[in-house]
Amino acid sequence: MKSFVPSADNSAFSLANLPYGVCSDAPDPSPRPGVRIGDHVLDLRAVETAGLLRNTTLGQERVFDASTLNHFMSKPHTAWRSVRTRLQALLAADNPELRDNAALREKSLIPLSRVQMHLPVEIGDYTDFYSSRHHAFNVGTMFRGPENALMPNYLHIPVGYHGRASTVVLSGTPIRRPSGQTKADADPAPKFGPSQRLDFELEMGVFLGGPDNALGEPIPMDRVEERLFGMVILNDWSARDIQAWEYQPLGPFLSKNFATSISPWIVPFEALAPFRVAPPAQEPKPFAYLLRERDVAEQPAAGWSYDIALEVALATAKQPLPQTICRSNHRHLYWTVAQQLAHHSITGCRMRPGDLLGSGTISGPTEDSYGSMLELAWRGTKPIKMQSGEERRFLHDGDSVVMSASCRSSDGQTRIGFGECVGTIVPARG
Amino acid sequence: MKSFVPSADNSAFSLANLPYGVCSDAPDPSPRPGVRIGDHVLDLRAVETAGLLRNTTLGQERVFDASTLNHFMSKPHTAWRSVRTRLQALLAADNPELRDNAALREKSLIPLSRVQMHLPVEIGDYTDFYSSRHHAFNVGTMFRGPENALMPNYLHIPVGYHGRASTVVLSGTPIRRPSGQTKADADPAPKFGPSQRLDFELEMGVFLGGPDNALGEPIPMDRVEERLFGMVILNDWSARDIQAWEYQPLGPFLSKNFATSISPWIVPFEALAPFRVAPPAQEPKPFAYLLRERDVAEQPAAGWSYDIALEVALATAKQPLPQTICRSNHRHLYWTVAQQLAHHSITGCRMRPGDLLGSGTISGPTEDSYGSMLELAWRGTKPIKMQSGEERRFLHDGDSVVMSASCRSSDGQTRIGFGECVGTIVPARG
Repeated sequence: MKSFVPSADNSAFSLANLPYGVCSDAPDPSPRPGVRIGDHVLDLRAVETAGLLRNTTLGQERVFDASTLNHFMSKPHTAWRSVRTRLQALLAADNPELRDNAALREKSLIPLSRVQMHLPVEIGDYTDFYSSRHHAFNVGTMFRGPENALMPNYLHIPVGYHGRASTVVLSGTPIRRPSGQTKADADPAPKFGPSQRLDFELEMGVFLGGPDNALGEPIPMDRVEERLFGMVILNDWSARDIQAWEYQPLGPFLSKNFATSISPWIVPFEALAPFRVAPPAQEPKPFAYLLRERDVAEQPAAGWSYDIALEVALATAKQPLPQTICRSNHRHLYWTVAQQLAHHSITGCRMRPGDLLGSGTISGPTEDSYGSMLELAWRGTKPIKMQSGEERRFLHDGDSVVMSASCRSSDGQTRIGFGECVGTIVPARG
Repeated sequence: MKSFVPSADNSAFSLANLPYGVCSDAPDPSPRPGVRIGDHVLDLRAVETAGLLRNTTLGQERVFDASTLNHFMSKPHTAWRSVRTRLQALLAADNPELRDNAALREKSLIPLSRVQMHLPVEIGDYTDFYSSRHHAFNVGTMFRGPENALMPNYLHIPVGYHGRASTVVLSGTPIRRPSGQTKADADPAPKFGPSQRLDFELEMGVFLGGPDNALGEPIPMDRVEERLFGMVILNDWSARDIQAWEYQPLGPFLSKNFATSISPWIVPFEALAPFRVAPPAQEPKPFAYLLRERDVAEQPAAGWSYDIALEVALATAKQPLPQTICRSNHRHLYWTVAQQLAHHSITGCRMRPGDLLGSGTISGPTEDSYGSMLELAWRGTKPIKMQSGEERRFLHDGDSVVMSASCRSSDGQTRIGFGECVGTIVPARG
């Protein structure tokens, strides 16, 4: 399938991807939904206004005359598919509707360099999971030794906790170093000041869509797919020293709630379908509510993990060129996105369109695949060596963390890009 | 100050209270803001439409033509005060504006018996604290003995965690018993099924208002007052057995997120001002960011705790008449509302109008003042005896929990009512 948009076909943003975002530009500073194609953004409000989405399941309804994607996401998954198919057709090389309509093309197809991106979704609730077994094992090993590294519940429960929705920010937003209480084991009393152990966490975020489940009604595994809208890169910034002192008994709070960054483009699950792979074998076998009908007989379930290559690069004030410090993959997650959602709603928890689920830090099995500085520098004992000669145990002011993600088919023909999730540390408030 | 509304003056909903809610009625089923006066609701949309709020700081702006209070709450605290003063004047016995306008009175003053209440706020983020030292001590004692009952951080940090906003429901909403994983200490493996240790938690909830603080900018203690809009009764339903198995290392998750009930009327902090009392002495002295300028010199700080009498009553299918099982008071909280907010935002966490802060279970020092069944029945060892002859260790299907709260001045002249927060347990989904 080829597009008439120049250079789209050979990019990671071809017709096979078509991620959704919210953008504005100088001629029209009002944020509005768009879809990325190559180095352009197709303005969905303009396309909808021109009547070009009427032959989708949306019909006459307008969902893109909005400053977020929530309205569109709240429609049934059949509507997402219908719109995606229609957008692929509209942007196809052999379709004259948009290609040959110079006025509309001029109005709706905006060069990426000209747009400003905005937070794409008004996030209802943000939940963060802990689904990489390697990450949980690494952190557990540091604090409790390898024998007791995994908590007894880890292989039974997709462990997660509620995060803070109001501080989910767009890639590029400066991250102010938080201040808070910390206490070294050796110190008799806590002290107050800027965090000295500021870290990133490499995660992927899943946006939910579709109509709410009613309060008290779980979403069964066989229907989770109807609620999974798309994925972004997510950086769960963490202040390790604040966390260590505050987290007993109710979990992380201020150590996580100062900022969470996400990449601007939401890649639809439809675009990721070719990259579904078997998840790691799960032993002991999960409870039935965490399995699909067909999985009850056979394990591991085909699909539901994704082969998405992930990378973290670090730049410093002295070394502006980012240096790769981690290569991981979404497939390393022990618990799948589907299991996370089925677990989250098993109590009847209402899940709304626009809710965000973080995967948890995605660490792989090897030392170069660890998804946090805590693990990469192994609690400060193996500092990261920068080409500039600098060392890093945790993040310094002026450091930039650049996360990227992409899928590539084995024949190299299809690439799906997520773009980047970037954040630069600015000094604590004086 | 007397009102022309019959029976208002001698009620807990006199001109001294004027709590905000959202209601609808049969003639007009659209939810809209109202203020309670005696056994009536004043329809704020109608009053605003009639132009009667123009001589407030709102001027021509419309904030009550909405299905929630968020727009009003987002205005500066000076606007809340201005509107409150104006409403007190409009409802006063000696003011003819509304009193003698039969058509508008008929339209805007609706008998409480005729209205249906709705969730008053679209909640952005919900945070739950753990600020009763008695509660923390009781729970800690049960699980770790009295010597290690309080975590080392407890007297330094107003401990809290993020809760689930999507399942905050209005008083009266049936509460479905959640299912989940549980594991008794003696069992080799977890099992799945309906929670057997369903509990309530007696809390007060604080709604924030005012413009957002910018990301990265804390709210200092001397300005928290500008963000405190009003208070409700809050029941933080808890599945103790699910909690015990899931909560390590990231805190409570499914054990709390199936439902949180709140009472329908938000009592403004202005109405509570006469009931401000000194909080408990805090030793060790908190860090400066948890103290006002004037508190730095002297402790305990005057004000910021509230003398609000709290009660929990229990009814069962066999005993429909609620029986009081707990009498507590908001003043028992170790950490104040002001300290909670200053702590929450010290990292620069953005706090939005419509955010909700739960106090944590408000247990007092005596056995009859414990704010949860876990404590009242002391982990099942001292079952609660009902007049029906039944016993309760935890909640049964068909049980109703009725929480109420009120303030009364020492001369008995002024009462401020919060009404009730009610929930009935319905059986787990089959």
